[in-house]
Amino acid sequence: MLWITDEGKPEDSFRYAVSDVLVRAKTQFQDLAIVDTTAYGKALVLDGNWQSCVADEFLYHEPLVQPALLVHGSPKRVAILGGGEGGTLREVLRWSCVERAVMIDLDEDVVAACKEFLPEMHQGAFDDPRAEVQICDATSWLDTTDEKFDVVISDLSEPLEHGPSYQLFTQEYFQQVRRVLRPDGIFAIQAGSVAPHEITVFARVASTLRTVFEVVRPYASFVPSFAAPWGFLLASSEHDRDLPSPESVDRMIRTTTSGGLRMLDGESFRGLFSTSAHIRSAISAETTVYTLADPPQI
Amino acid sequence: MLWITDEGKPEDSFRYAVSDVLVRAKTQFQDLAIVDTTAYGKALVLDGNWQSCVADEFLYHEPLVQPALLVHGSPKRVAILGGGEGGTLREVLRWSCVERAVMIDLDEDVVAACKEFLPEMHQGAFDDPRAEVQICDATSWLDTTDEKFDVVISDLSEPLEHGPSYQLFTQEYFQQVRRVLRPDGIFAIQAGSVAPHEITVFARVASTLRTVFEVVRPYASFVPSFAAPWGFLLASSEHDRDLPSPESVDRMIRTTTSGGLRMLDGESFRGLFSTSAHIRSAISAETTVYTLADPPQI
Amino acid sequence: MLWITDEGKPEDSFRYAVSDVLVRAKTQFQDLAIVDTTAYGKALVLDGNWQSCVADEFLYHEPLVQPALLVHGSPKRVAILGGGEGGTLREVLRWSCVERAVMIDLDEDVVAACKEFLPEMHQGAFDDPRAEVQICDATSWLDTTDEKFDVVISDLSEPLEHGPSYQLFTQEYFQQVRRVLRPDGIFAIQAGSVAPHEITVFARVASTLRTVFEVVRPYASFVPSFAAPWGFLLASSEHDRDLPSPESVDRMIRTTTSGGLRMLDGESFRGLFSTSAHIRSAISAETTVYTLADPPQI
Amino acid sequence: MLWITDEGKPEDSFRYAVSDVLVRAKTQFQDLAIVDTTAYGKALVLDGNWQSCVADEFLYHEPLVQPALLVHGSPKRVAILGGGEGGTLREVLRWSCVERAVMIDLDEDVVAACKEFLPEMHQGAFDDPRAEVQICDATSWLDTTDEKFDVVISDLSEPLEHGPSYQLFTQEYFQQVRRVLRPDGIFAIQAGSVAPHEITVFARVASTLRTVFEVVRPYASFVPSFAAPWGFLLASSEHDRDLPSPESVDRMIRTTTSGGLRMLDGESFRGLFSTSAHIRSAISAETTVYTLADPPQI
Repeated sequence: MLWITDEGKPEDSFRYAVSDVLVRAKTQFQDLAIVDTTAYGKALVLDGNWQSCVADEFLYHEPLVQPALLVHGSPKRVAILGGGEGGTLREVLRWSCVERAVMIDLDEDVVAACKEFLPEMHQGAFDDPRAEVQICDATSWLDTTDEKFDVVISDLSEPLEHGPSYQLFTQEYFQQVRRVLRPDGIFAIQAGSVAPHEITVFARVASTLRTVFEVVRPYASFVPSFAAPWGFLLASSEHDRDLPSPESVDRMIRTTTSGGLRMLDGESFRGLFSTSAHIRSAISAETTVYTLADPPQI
Repeated sequence: MLWITDEGKPEDSFRYAVSDVLVRAKTQFQDLAIVDTTAYGKALVLDGNWQSCVADEFLYHEPLVQPALLVHGSPKRVAILGGGEGGTLREVLRWSCVERAVMIDLDEDVVAACKEFLPEMHQGAFDDPRAEVQICDATSWLDTTDEKFDVVISDLSEPLEHGPSYQLFTQEYFQQVRRVLRPDGIFAIQAGSVAPHEITVFARVASTLRTVFEVVRPYASFVPSFAAPWGFLLASSEHDRDLPSPESVDRMIRTTTSGGLRMLDGESFRGLFSTSAHIRSAISAETTVYTLADPPQI
Repeated sequence: MLWITDEGKPEDSFRYAVSDVLVRAKTQFQDLAIVDTTAYGKALVLDGNWQSCVADEFLYHEPLVQPALLVHGSPKRVAILGGGEGGTLREVLRWSCVERAVMIDLDEDVVAACKEFLPEMHQGAFDDPRAEVQICDATSWLDTTDEKFDVVISDLSEPLEHGPSYQLFTQEYFQQVRRVLRPDGIFAIQAGSVAPHEITVFARVASTLRTVFEVVRPYASFVPSFAAPWGFLLASSEHDRDLPSPESVDRMIRTTTSGGLRMLDGESFRGLFSTSAHIRSAISAETTVYTLADPPQI
Repeated sequence: MLWITDEGKPEDSFRYAVSDVLVRAKTQFQDLAIVDTTAYGKALVLDGNWQSCVADEFLYHEPLVQPALLVHGSPKRVAILGGGEGGTLREVLRWSCVERAVMIDLDEDVVAACKEFLPEMHQGAFDDPRAEVQICDATSWLDTTDEKFDVVISDLSEPLEHGPSYQLFTQEYFQQVRRVLRPDGIFAIQAGSVAPHEITVFARVASTLRTVFEVVRPYASFVPSFAAPWGFLLASSEHDRDLPSPESVDRMIRTTTSGGLRMLDGESFRGLFSTSAHIRSAISAETTVYTLADPPQI
């Protein structure tokens, strides 16, 4: 039997039965694998870390993208940091008011492999005329771009020490994100597991965001193949914007998107932001701020 | 290195690093293990199936118990089917209005081992004068008891074919549960994974409950060490009872419980019942009804 | 990380790190995989059972083939039952006196895949003009062929109940092997692990051979990637033939083979047939005879 | 299911099903576990490295001890470096001419645990009046003892870098061993795997011994639970001593030991020293010498 194990947690590891290996390569930046699994369908694995799979990626990509767009209400320009599989781009492009979606990804080979082997994830999003993929480091892009966006979505791999994305979880780069956002813009970021014994990194990302943005809202979604409840944060500069009501969410989805959502509607939107008390406690107790001088260490 | 693997999903199995084995025994009914794990603390494992662990059992036991008691509002008599670890009993006894909590468990050895080795779970609940443990088969108990209860909680192991508890997931035994409930009584049941690729059993339990109870409400909580979002169902015979508001939940917790909840409060109560659309779709599409003649087959 | 586990021993399994998957297919008869492993090089895996790998196949193929040819002394016609990888054929063709080597394998797809992806194993043997591959069931071939051979080598997968080769480990088929051997012919068979806790099948194959052949000699070789010492048996009808001396073995290798052996020479030939006492004890105590009516059950 | 994995080879690891954990402790020097396994019986595991198990320890302890005693012929005083389980001591004490057997082990807790929980291994050897256990570092003992021995047996754990025993695989300590041997004394040492892809350490230990002793003889035994053929070396200072013949070995075993050997007799003794050509090639090609300044690095 062939298996893949998630190296993210060496001690407590999940092993998935693999029925086929579609791609296995060393790119310039990382070890890339696209495998077909018995239970979870096709999956993308980078440097041994499970990224997403066909069976439950909607429980990751919908919560990562839709809340920011729904809270904004009429997004026209959206930037995505990372997002190789194209699932994040797909979710953004559901919105008919979106005129431009720029995706910044470091690794051309990952994007090309996902384009070819994971059509179930991107569903043609890369061919949408509103989409543009820029192959470059998100830090350089944030340092140099002049564009302004309604929504920025951070869909980067974990902030591993010495890894390619740890800088993008620091105060300095959250300030850069704020710089490229319009005043009423929204920033959404995936920020790791909120399992009780692993919630520290998530809480520190929240604590760091609070030093840059006026409003920071945590939420979480169950992603079974991650073997953990996954945490996201929504950050913005306006104090006075409430979350839309379930009815309003249902109406926006009906009128301004092409539909097809499997997880998100008015009810589950409300559910996402009605988090378990242990998540709120962990965040409110946390004071550590990640900076370039003192970045995440995992 | 010492490990324990969850045999529930042989293909896609989680392995946990084990630092110590506290109990390992064959009881009259099952294979019993209590182990100490590196990441999740002490855990109970029956027949190779992970039951619960200290690190995240509150994400299972609070949602299993508190919603039923909160929806009822003033529970006096509560019955628990199964519940060996004592965590379910502990949650019931937080309520000061509860006068009697009867726990029906098949396996005396499991209860005794949990009492001795898992004080973190029961927290002394077995010694509460309101608690009574009856060692017998829950089917026999349901067939013969004359008592009536405000709340019945089903905390049984999975309905495995030929396993000890599959009968208790059938229409016939849900009717017996209804028989021992007062007219305004509430039934809460843990009913398995709601991961998209595994949700069928949960949906069928819901479908079966709907043939017996007027109101059936699904909800889910992510239990990291289960590597899946876990599904529960709340069933009752009264059409017109709404869920309490977040404020009302917070008030009840403050005034009628001894406190100490880590996951559940008004906000997360609302969150629990604001489920992902995929859960509601799976349930509404399901028509299979489990009966003694046609029970779960897993 | 990608792994392959040997399903032969589900409880005590070896897992090998896989760097690449070269072939993964369902053939008409079995599940076929050729993988590249980190430590053992390329490996052939059939139905989840490890067959052989580049790093140590010489510790299997040399002992399987060379002793029979050396004991015979001047083999001209050799038949191989099974032997998909071509490693057995390669060993036979080292002998310059061999005029014809017929290999009977059930599965054309396995042979084709090995030809393409495992050149390190067959080393061109399939293209030798003396070699002929017949794709058919070894039982049918033994039932119908009119040819006579100096040496027959059984290189079949384990005699699993309901598997494709269990019949070829029975008294009836050992009689058929005897039928296709010349009077001074030699039969060599791989017959499974001789680890103390697993030696029963090996001992029973020996016991069965003893009912058909006058002389049956056990021997064993260490194959690290099998995680077990591997047992072979040499059977013949002549009482009076001694094993060649180490000097005689070295001379034959020098004069009648093309050389290139890595494991076998006069010294190690003597070592192979100087077995551990526990192997001889197990064999002499065994009386079970495998027949078509009462075949191996593993 | 409970498992233990051998950490010696993280990539290609063997996992053993564990039915019970008898001891789990941190001693002053290492992590100690004695587990009962489903297939291999009770096993000793130190720092996650499998040491030996009841099912096949005789394939390790008999070859480690008996050849040295047989080659000597009339051993009276024997020293054992390491040997916690007592299996090595047991083998030495089979010889009726042995008057004194001194075992030097670093870790009192390991010895005590083996004494209590592994009676199948030591079989009472620790209580033999000829046995003496000294708890101390083998390097200190070799540096200071004035005793002279007929046979010294090194039964130490692998020479891991920074591990407790790497010094005892260097030229300097082989000289100390020579110092405590009588002129006709024999030194036997276990020296690791002789699997083709792992044989380097073994070859270097041989190469190092050759700089200290006149005669160095390699031999190997397959220990299934080690998942590798295991290499040993016999070293002595006398040029002219031949190995005893199989008949002579059988006679010595019959007349000067208490019997009970399961693996070793005249035939298998000859087999042990008739090694695979690849082992001899690896050794003769190796020139590296381990010294305190340049010790093993694994």
